[in-house]
Amino acid sequence: MKAAVLHGKHELTVENVPDAVIREPGDAVVRVVAAGICGTDLHGYHGLPGPVTGPRCGHEFVGVVEDIGSEVSTLRRGTMVVAPFNFADGTCPPCRTGLHSACAAGGMFGVDGDGAQAEAVRVPFADATLVAVPVDRNDERLPSLLALTDSMATGLHAVRTGRVAPGSTVAVLGDGPVGMCAVLAAGEAGAGRIILVGRHETRLGKGRDFGATDTLQARGPESGAESVDFVRTITQGLGADVVVECGGGPPAQNTAFALCRTGGTVCVMGGPPIGDVTPVFFRGITLTGGLTPARVYLPELVDRVLAGTLDPGPIFDEVVALDDIVSGYEAMAARTATKVLVRP
Amino acid sequence: MKAAVLHGKHELTVENVPDAVIREPGDAVVRVVAAGICGTDLHGYHGLPGPVTGPRCGHEFVGVVEDIGSEVSTLRRGTMVVAPFNFADGTCPPCRTGLHSACAAGGMFGVDGDGAQAEAVRVPFADATLVAVPVDRNDERLPSLLALTDSMATGLHAVRTGRVAPGSTVAVLGDGPVGMCAVLAAGEAGAGRIILVGRHETRLGKGRDFGATDTLQARGPESGAESVDFVRTITQGLGADVVVECGGGPPAQNTAFALCRTGGTVCVMGGPPIGDVTPVFFRGITLTGGLTPARVYLPELVDRVLAGTLDPGPIFDEVVALDDIVSGYEAMAARTATKVLVRP
Repeated sequence: MKAAVLHGKHELTVENVPDAVIREPGDAVVRVVAAGICGTDLHGYHGLPGPVTGPRCGHEFVGVVEDIGSEVSTLRRGTMVVAPFNFADGTCPPCRTGLHSACAAGGMFGVDGDGAQAEAVRVPFADATLVAVPVDRNDERLPSLLALTDSMATGLHAVRTGRVAPGSTVAVLGDGPVGMCAVLAAGEAGAGRIILVGRHETRLGKGRDFGATDTLQARGPESGAESVDFVRTITQGLGADVVVECGGGPPAQNTAFALCRTGGTVCVMGGPPIGDVTPVFFRGITLTGGLTPARVYLPELVDRVLAGTLDPGPIFDEVVALDDIVSGYEAMAARTATKVLVRP
Repeated sequence: MKAAVLHGKHELTVENVPDAVIREPGDAVVRVVAAGICGTDLHGYHGLPGPVTGPRCGHEFVGVVEDIGSEVSTLRRGTMVVAPFNFADGTCPPCRTGLHSACAAGGMFGVDGDGAQAEAVRVPFADATLVAVPVDRNDERLPSLLALTDSMATGLHAVRTGRVAPGSTVAVLGDGPVGMCAVLAAGEAGAGRIILVGRHETRLGKGRDFGATDTLQARGPESGAESVDFVRTITQGLGADVVVECGGGPPAQNTAFALCRTGGTVCVMGGPPIGDVTPVFFRGITLTGGLTPARVYLPELVDRVLAGTLDPGPIFDEVVALDDIVSGYEAMAARTATKVLVRP
């Protein structure tokens, strides 16, 4: 089968690899219908630190179950499924407390197992990992369903861990797909004011479509002082109740603390290293967020997409064939695309 | 009047200083009936980094209102009062959101104003700062009331910010006064299991009296592996739901993360610098706690002490006269006393 293979910095190729096959009785093999390119993949592509180091890539996909192991009981061949970005056994202590993202036996697609940017994927713990969706492979909502696997689940996790309350003010730092989805989730949670800070006016416009009430075009989410001034002005000097930091690293995290109100909450969704957290002590700010347990949120998110009440699909603004995946990576690297959908 | 004056490392004397007087119309002057020595004072005494640098010392006191400024409306001369360790205006945005500890115009007694280890204290923003208590200066509950000003308010803040739920498992690192009070507060919140880790068997015994269900004598709260093993064994490998870290610095904070369950909460009550917080991201741990808004908690705590349902008084196990305050500092430094009450 064909799969994207990363041999080193900017050395991404599509080539033949061994077919995805059942190895354990709990496995399924899923034929990929659509895969996503994530900012994390881009980090790997640029040779930057992060989980993606190759050779296999991609952790976002929807597809059709092609084969199942002898112990798989809830799925059958031909079922359309959505996968969270990581597989998880569903039975370990972290999974039982709802944190499949920290599963003791689990892992991330493309890092600890087959990558999603391929024709097919072996899925460990298939019953606990995959979520069946009653649509066919040509359904127009596939991009929206694909958006749930990582970006939308992350945006929702920010809002849930940040305990966004109706009427509250939420500031989102970063206008990438996760930032967009955090805006969407904040709106669904009833936030009264949703401030989006990002670099790209076109993305900020999309953010307004998603529900941002105020947007600031800044040199970057780390452009501290102007973001702080903007949020302070809107909030009568108080700062935002909840700040969602979407991948800007320590500079943006420090900005997040600076524009959070005393006693508010900062959700760090972009990963470590984490900046200076002393405001947790002196300003009573709670630090939360982290890797989303996408599997936990998928059922409710799928229901809302199918009911037509949630549509994160527009985070995708370019589609490429698997054979042309390098052009998709390059479009995201050049910021000419926000997020690219890959069709094997 | 007499006051403790810190001239440098281990250079603490009791000497005559100018009398505490009304300077602003919102001030009160309080004649000190009992003051506490805090771990923070000890840090200053040892010349270690922290807020206490001298010359004035002490931020815990109960006393009698001796004089009031022209704008003080809720207090009168002769009223017995309890003071939080910091004064606050009660009107700024942080105060209005319940974080008097981050008051924009406020400060800490002994750091930004008169110290409590003295015969009298000038109290700025007296209406917003002081809490009247209907007891006289000989009431046997004075130590319990004094304990509320910092240690008990801090223990309660840990439990409130950590959202300790009935039946949950709470681990407290540190057997000093704050750790003791966190144990007490966790019990009041209905925690099912309260694990106290500390260095001193006598203090651990007091901790059991306060409600600790399990105690570990460790070389220090930073003695990571043995603490982690102890908590894991008790919690069937899961870790504690909430971990309260009481002043052990980064080593103890890292231990706190290690023995917290995935998805749990770490409350940092001892101050920065804060250790490695990457578990916030990868293990979904929430970091909270911080400087307690003691003023917010005082009314409810005072009510419970007066009702006889709360008694943190036993954190004090030695009483000294103001003239002998150095012996009190030395007793705490030598760990022969847990906490010392000073009588001017």
